[in-house]
Amino acid sequence: MFSGAQVSLYPMTDGFVDVILDAVRAMDPFAEKLRIETDDVSTLMVGPHEALFDAMHALFDSAAATGHHAVLHATVSRGCPGEPDDPICAGPLDAGTFGPLEERQQQAMTEVRQTPASGLRADGQFSLYVPGATIHMDEVYGCIDFLKQAGVFAKSKNFCTKLSGDSSAVFEALHQAFIRFGSPAGHVALDITISANSPSLKK
Amino acid sequence: MFSGAQVSLYPMTDGFVDVILDAVRAMDPFAEKLRIETDDVSTLMVGPHEALFDAMHALFDSAAATGHHAVLHATVSRGCPGEPDDPICAGPLDAGTFGPLEERQQQAMTEVRQTPASGLRADGQFSLYVPGATIHMDEVYGCIDFLKQAGVFAKSKNFCTKLSGDSSAVFEALHQAFIRFGSPAGHVALDITISANSPSLKK
Repeated sequence: MFSGAQVSLYPMTDGFVDVILDAVRAMDPFAEKLRIETDDVSTLMVGPHEALFDAMHALFDSAAATGHHAVLHATVSRGCPGEPDDPICAGPLDAGTFGPLEERQQQAMTEVRQTPASGLRADGQFSLYVPGATIHMDEVYGCIDFLKQAGVFAKSKNFCTKLSGDSSAVFEALHQAFIRFGSPAGHVALDITISANSPSLKK
Repeated sequence: MFSGAQVSLYPMTDGFVDVILDAVRAMDPFAEKLRIETDDVSTLMVGPHEALFDAMHALFDSAAATGHHAVLHATVSRGCPGEPDDPICAGPLDAGTFGPLEERQQQAMTEVRQTPASGLRADGQFSLYVPGATIHMDEVYGCIDFLKQAGVFAKSKNFCTKLSGDSSAVFEALHQAFIRFGSPAGHVALDITISANSPSLKK
């Protein structure tokens, strides 16, 4: 199943180009599993979901570690009916079977809890879309329940859910939201914003 | 019908706080029509769609006019079944009737063409979601056709459509995409990224 992301990194500093170039190098361990194309607005990454989220996490942590206020935005998608398939993305989601919602929430929580901490704080928000499916709101509410139990839920906001925690837990929670909710072989899209070192939090 | 946006502005400069504060002041003419709440990740704006897009456009133009590389991101939504209604948002979309796709494309194009230019360039991309509706892909393709005819289409990208043009035309095109596609009283969401003064375009 085709999966990928359009990713942008916004370091709020005059030296933003260097912060971005260093962050791109931090993705090297995952780059060979991904097809990567960059233009002036975003970087496309196509590949299996584990590598996608590992690469985004590495990008974020590199920028966060500079101490500058920086934000990562990603539009992440799987199973979009308008996209051609790509062998680089093949994986277990293609099997097309999902267990009951409660079972998936438990599996997702286990994965988040097993993720080693990065020591870097991440504050962000995301929206989950299941276009073209009538199960949309059930899956969205099920996903929000999982986030509350996984310890990364910050608050409900209009149009999105706010997350806060160690960057490893936040990115793994987003990864789990991506693969365990919606329909297994269907279209799922995320609109993700993750912020590091916001001066608003230091007041 | 409830409509609003979570909006963030990312000026890539050490002086990002001042650029943001000036841009927020540029929204003043529209602020009385909107309910506005800010946290460390985004600013919520709730209100009628005209004021929403006028306010986002003013925010972007103010940042773009500084000459700094700056990006506006917005998650824009109407008719989300998880949101309470709000009298501030009442308007003609509540009537719940849409003409045929071709008629809506023509109306949208007329609106874009009548919009006075700002003289500021905008490069961005967006995704249109119609969650919970089987018409999703027909409406998405219909909207992309409109953008091509309206002169702001830059290229197709995975998961989104890239736009380029005068910032007034780009924001009006996004406004039209928001109100004339999807289902009239149903849930429609946009994931919008608009960039100003990218150094990648100056190479």
